[in-house]
Amino acid sequence: MKCCLGIDVGGTSVKMGLFRYDGNILDKWEITTRTQNQGEAILGDISKSIKEKVEEHKIPKEDILGIGMGIPAPVTGDGIVYQTANLGWGYKEVKREMEEFIGYPVFVANDANVAALGEMWLGGGRGHKNLVVVTLGTGVGGAIIVGGECVVGSHGGAGEIGHITVNYDETETCGCGRCGCLEQYASATGIARLARRRLKADDTPSILREEKRVTAKDVFDAVKEGDPVAGEIASEFGRYLGYALANVAAACDPGVIVIGGGVSKAGPALLGFIERPFRERAYISNMNTAFALAQLGNDAGICGAAKLVLK
Amino acid sequence: MKCCLGIDVGGTSVKMGLFRYDGNILDKWEITTRTQNQGEAILGDISKSIKEKVEEHKIPKEDILGIGMGIPAPVTGDGIVYQTANLGWGYKEVKREMEEFIGYPVFVANDANVAALGEMWLGGGRGHKNLVVVTLGTGVGGAIIVGGECVVGSHGGAGEIGHITVNYDETETCGCGRCGCLEQYASATGIARLARRRLKADDTPSILREEKRVTAKDVFDAVKEGDPVAGEIASEFGRYLGYALANVAAACDPGVIVIGGGVSKAGPALLGFIERPFRERAYISNMNTAFALAQLGNDAGICGAAKLVLK
Repeated sequence: MKCCLGIDVGGTSVKMGLFRYDGNILDKWEITTRTQNQGEAILGDISKSIKEKVEEHKIPKEDILGIGMGIPAPVTGDGIVYQTANLGWGYKEVKREMEEFIGYPVFVANDANVAALGEMWLGGGRGHKNLVVVTLGTGVGGAIIVGGECVVGSHGGAGEIGHITVNYDETETCGCGRCGCLEQYASATGIARLARRRLKADDTPSILREEKRVTAKDVFDAVKEGDPVAGEIASEFGRYLGYALANVAAACDPGVIVIGGGVSKAGPALLGFIERPFRERAYISNMNTAFALAQLGNDAGICGAAKLVLK
Repeated sequence: MKCCLGIDVGGTSVKMGLFRYDGNILDKWEITTRTQNQGEAILGDISKSIKEKVEEHKIPKEDILGIGMGIPAPVTGDGIVYQTANLGWGYKEVKREMEEFIGYPVFVANDANVAALGEMWLGGGRGHKNLVVVTLGTGVGGAIIVGGECVVGSHGGAGEIGHITVNYDETETCGCGRCGCLEQYASATGIARLARRRLKADDTPSILREEKRVTAKDVFDAVKEGDPVAGEIASEFGRYLGYALANVAAACDPGVIVIGGGVSKAGPALLGFIERPFRERAYISNMNTAFALAQLGNDAGICGAAKLVLK
């Protein structure tokens, strides 16, 4: 039975999964990320843990097709990283070093792109080869998959959907230094900001006024309870995101748009708020583009990393 | 010397080129497109013309690597066309039929995408693998190239940059039935419309007032003569296009953006009007994205079609 490993390297822990080639997960576990001394122990630790696990499952060496790794940094096509914010690494030839440690073929890519591949393979985007994956968390992340592979771009910057400008009149500054980025309206913090603005605008009654500090979760909880002000806030969020995605779709024509990240825990109702404005503005080719929630949560990284091996 | 042929099939004529594998063009010619009887003669005519030309140049059969064809319709990955507006064809297995006629491998793609490949190979986008190509003509066409290949999309609709919404307040209708598409401001007809609106707005003197019906060419000619009103119109055009391209770049991260079509005959000055607003709104990864004018004019189609063979 051919197998592969998917490794999701984070600043705190490394998540690891042992997969059959058909996507069945045989085991998953994690180890601590030792970032001290420029993260010099990380690859060795991963390698040791993989060897132990492969031995434990009594998998013959020739049945291991390879190791896929997602790294929280831009990664070149040759599996090289120049800088990482959270791992301690500077320039590092991750693919080459890891192959020397482990003796299997190693495939390395950016962690956000890898998570999107996971959703394509085993999650909300199953059955599609052209996807836009949007992650609504503290920020707005994105990935664009064309023909089953993530678009990396000429400067490693493809998929930065959160930094599409959606409001040319905005005066507050985005984390990126510019004004009016999608991230300022569609991230968890952006939704909280829309809520604060809306609540300040007048004194329409709303259960949101009971909260000391309204969060994105509060907004969608209140929507479920039928709170009209929360509905307005969710509609404003959805209009910014849906309109932006209609424009991305005009450029890339995905088969499905997958919505993930913490905000997506609001569930299927969330999609309605995004789809309605999307269809209002979508070009005719994109009128039937599907929408789906991400399904893999924290496992998207290990799944997509495994998929790097099987592409 | 290995060779290939690039065929650009249009509704009036079929342009044809004989290329060396290194991009040197050995011959180019055209034949009439016989669209009568559902265009049944078109492929046979092309095939006959190719055979004559290959014989004329005394090229041994084994030196012909294949035939590339650009078709004015969406084309599937298998080289099938479902409908053409200008050729008379309904469902047609272009690749298979043409291979039966000619006996060489045949590669078929949409003509706009093929023209973009031509600019990548031998024109304004030379040296790049990730491009956005925008064609400013009667409408606004577009193509997105990732890793040297055109993005087709899940419904054949990728690259429809002209139908990105750039003005949510627009009340006039675009050809596509929606309002506020880029095409309404950045096509030749869109620029003429911007000019009419601007000239009506007040009576600031402008040499454009001497024209009975102002065209996009008149606007850029007047810009060159220092006409301030024409400058305002060109800036408005550039702001719509530059802002839209900054958003496309956030998604796709191209190495170069190539501007072609009739409007691009205005020359290098045109690029300034687009680049300034682009850089004002571009995400940090895209700050150094290059801009270039298309260079191949009507030859882009035959060049790109030849490139289909050599990919």
